[in-house]
Amino acid sequence: MGKPEHFPSETIKPVISKAELVRRVSAVLPAESLLYDEEELKPYECDGLSAYRKLPLAVALPETEDQIRAVLKICHEGRVPVVFRGAGTGLSGGALPYEHGLLLGLSKLKRILEIDPVARMARVQPGVRNAAISEAAAQYGLYYAPDPSSQIACSIGGNVAENSGGVHCLKYGLTVNNIMKVRFVTIDGELLEIGGDGLDAPGYDLLALITGSEGLLGVVTEITVKLLPSPVKAQVVLAAFDDVGKAGQAVADIIAARIIPAGLEMMDKKATGAVEQFIGAGYPLDAEAILLCESDGSEEEVESEIARITEVLKAAGATQIRVSQNEAERLKLWAGRKSAFPAVGRILPDYFCLDGTIPRKQLANVLKRIGEMQDTFNLQCANVFHAGDGNLHPLVMFDANDDDQLHRAEQYGAAILELCVEVGGTITGEHGVGIEKINQMCVQFRTPELNTFHSIKHAFDEHGLLNPGKAVPTLQRCAEFGAMHVHRGEEKFPDLPRF
Amino acid sequence: MGKPEHFPSETIKPVISKAELVRRVSAVLPAESLLYDEEELKPYECDGLSAYRKLPLAVALPETEDQIRAVLKICHEGRVPVVFRGAGTGLSGGALPYEHGLLLGLSKLKRILEIDPVARMARVQPGVRNAAISEAAAQYGLYYAPDPSSQIACSIGGNVAENSGGVHCLKYGLTVNNIMKVRFVTIDGELLEIGGDGLDAPGYDLLALITGSEGLLGVVTEITVKLLPSPVKAQVVLAAFDDVGKAGQAVADIIAARIIPAGLEMMDKKATGAVEQFIGAGYPLDAEAILLCESDGSEEEVESEIARITEVLKAAGATQIRVSQNEAERLKLWAGRKSAFPAVGRILPDYFCLDGTIPRKQLANVLKRIGEMQDTFNLQCANVFHAGDGNLHPLVMFDANDDDQLHRAEQYGAAILELCVEVGGTITGEHGVGIEKINQMCVQFRTPELNTFHSIKHAFDEHGLLNPGKAVPTLQRCAEFGAMHVHRGEEKFPDLPRF
Repeated sequence: MGKPEHFPSETIKPVISKAELVRRVSAVLPAESLLYDEEELKPYECDGLSAYRKLPLAVALPETEDQIRAVLKICHEGRVPVVFRGAGTGLSGGALPYEHGLLLGLSKLKRILEIDPVARMARVQPGVRNAAISEAAAQYGLYYAPDPSSQIACSIGGNVAENSGGVHCLKYGLTVNNIMKVRFVTIDGELLEIGGDGLDAPGYDLLALITGSEGLLGVVTEITVKLLPSPVKAQVVLAAFDDVGKAGQAVADIIAARIIPAGLEMMDKKATGAVEQFIGAGYPLDAEAILLCESDGSEEEVESEIARITEVLKAAGATQIRVSQNEAERLKLWAGRKSAFPAVGRILPDYFCLDGTIPRKQLANVLKRIGEMQDTFNLQCANVFHAGDGNLHPLVMFDANDDDQLHRAEQYGAAILELCVEVGGTITGEHGVGIEKINQMCVQFRTPELNTFHSIKHAFDEHGLLNPGKAVPTLQRCAEFGAMHVHRGEEKFPDLPRF
Repeated sequence: MGKPEHFPSETIKPVISKAELVRRVSAVLPAESLLYDEEELKPYECDGLSAYRKLPLAVALPETEDQIRAVLKICHEGRVPVVFRGAGTGLSGGALPYEHGLLLGLSKLKRILEIDPVARMARVQPGVRNAAISEAAAQYGLYYAPDPSSQIACSIGGNVAENSGGVHCLKYGLTVNNIMKVRFVTIDGELLEIGGDGLDAPGYDLLALITGSEGLLGVVTEITVKLLPSPVKAQVVLAAFDDVGKAGQAVADIIAARIIPAGLEMMDKKATGAVEQFIGAGYPLDAEAILLCESDGSEEEVESEIARITEVLKAAGATQIRVSQNEAERLKLWAGRKSAFPAVGRILPDYFCLDGTIPRKQLANVLKRIGEMQDTFNLQCANVFHAGDGNLHPLVMFDANDDDQLHRAEQYGAAILELCVEVGGTITGEHGVGIEKINQMCVQFRTPELNTFHSIKHAFDEHGLLNPGKAVPTLQRCAEFGAMHVHRGEEKFPDLPRF
């Protein structure tokens, strides 16, 4: 946009010393809620992206919203960078500490404040585990729909920060579609109440704006989530294919048949092989790819939908079709999918888990090209993903002790992300940008969009204190990185990004 | 927030003369696309809120995105306020011209650019009528879900600006839930591409931010909407009640029975009486209130859901239940609902159509209190509304030629909106704030939220040129209005707002 642009610097240093920070924060927190010895800080040096580690100046673990406001006011006055942390399960380094900053953990705010079965909502604190909401709502026949694989451990506050999805988001949407309102604290300690009990609220849609903003705009201190009626019945169909492209086409066929499955997941032979060795989910080992397609709803709905799904899969050339006959069978089929990442991790010591999203119609094409690249880079890639919404999780396997393998794996990952953008997709579906994909944002967006992001950031956090260096790259970084999005000739794209 | 606050002035005057504006805009538009004689301007003096009328300096009707960008650059340089206009069907005055500004109409951008049945999306220009999208998608068995009552006339660009809903938004969501990406031009003529083909996009959620922003942040020049499979079957249940409170409770019961109807509408006796005189939809005249509850989906789904709906309505005390037996009967039942506003308009010369939204559990309580207020203000109020999502449309009837009636009607309207906020709801569900409810925003929000809105506005439009005086009130206006939201004792609420 035409106004002076806001370029947050990536190096922000406090104007107060660590000692002074500790002194001031001690005055507003109980002693056990502030850690500053190196040994105490160690458990907080990384999140789920453990390749990156840093120690913060201190870790604050407030117990109340008032304490959060007080700590943030101190940081704002002292120009101390702040990184928020939920359960630390994030996969993109969003909660990686900033070495000149404070880490503010929400783990002590873990109360479920209210469940209202008539309004179908739960009001919870940010440290509540995702799965705990559904557990508490079960007595009313309700549940909270978004179900990231980490749902046993991850917190709802982190889900809001990352706009988390899960295997059921095709039908039920992402976090942003399943929350109603939040209490939100800005860097200067101001409290905002955002959203409402109705479908829509007047004013700009700040609720959507802060959802998925990766801790760059402020922190939620209370979340009101929507609850849904637990389906009376759920069944899953397993379909095997002798060709990955055919499985991709079957996904498009299901969507084209006007079915919206509760979940529609795909795994290729490398992934199913790893899973079978790991937990034995009963997947056919001779299939090149399998689909898991779930239907949920009333008895009648599920019965008729499963029949239609089966028909489409047969017509698409499935070599084997199996329908779960009871809840144990259904859970066993899903257990394989949910353990796919650790299972693949046992084949080679390291893997990159990519998170690109592509238009569904590109599935067969993109899978074929990812497969062909195995020869180009002389590496193996297992594919496990949310096929229904086009969210890929290619797992590029390598041994990090071999520099050449590491280098090729980085190139392979970069090529896959470039391919996702090329076919009209995005570099991340649900894991967030964090520190991991910050350079790829330069491929995804042009200068006008990045400028707009910086203007929004400036509106909330003019000194750039919140989660510096994450999620939205500075234009300077993109210039140094040497990659800018090619688009209608407006900007050049001189080099492949280095992953 | 803690930084210098941005208070857009409500009086913005260009630094160039009308003659100079006309000269500059003429250079970038065809002659027939620029109107500036008073007579030519007259048709643009108001939108659907015809109580407010103003003439702009000129009306520009560009035919291309490049022309829009060029016109906006001229306005930005000349500090000329700009108001956007779609089909002019808005009910809150969002497209009311600004007397010192340009009105920029999108009516000439009315092409459907692409329909992709596999990706289930349509790419359209902003001037395309809402209903035209579904008409064009029908050949693929698809449709665009949001269906405002004005859907035959209203444009998709206006729907994005207002985040429009409709009778089916309970099940299918508002505009924001049904669009994927847009091309968006800011006041300085910069083009942004926002959103993507996937479920989520990296960076801040600008798509949701601009949806419903009422032309204050920029203008969409192309919209990619989601298409849904047309339901195989739809049926509607009409249920009559001898008490408005019982009908309200029946709505809560349907939701509590874990049913999500495709539509769930309510009308009270005054509304049904007016409709029967007007078009004869077959509503029972002796009922105090009726519900229309629709189910759509596959044959099996609809059959089982209609059975469950009927059972719940019986248990809730319905005195009569009728299920549409064919498409003609279904459309006749809906025709009554859709003509309710003009029908009520025939009882007394004027009415205020309110648009408050309340938590569903408050329905029975709020309806009772709105009914009691008829005595307090000595005026009649008909109730027609989207019961399922708690979006009320009380119609306060009066004769504007009687000053005392007008005054009492304003008081009655204000009291209803205050009641909506009091029970945890909002002042507007789907009609937008515009000019109509600008003062009530001072009741809805506290200073921190209003400040945040102004900061966002400033990030997009630092000179406050876009739609001045609409949607988000200045703090000065709220101070003069004398109403601030009472909330946990942080701000006073000295007076009832004057509607």
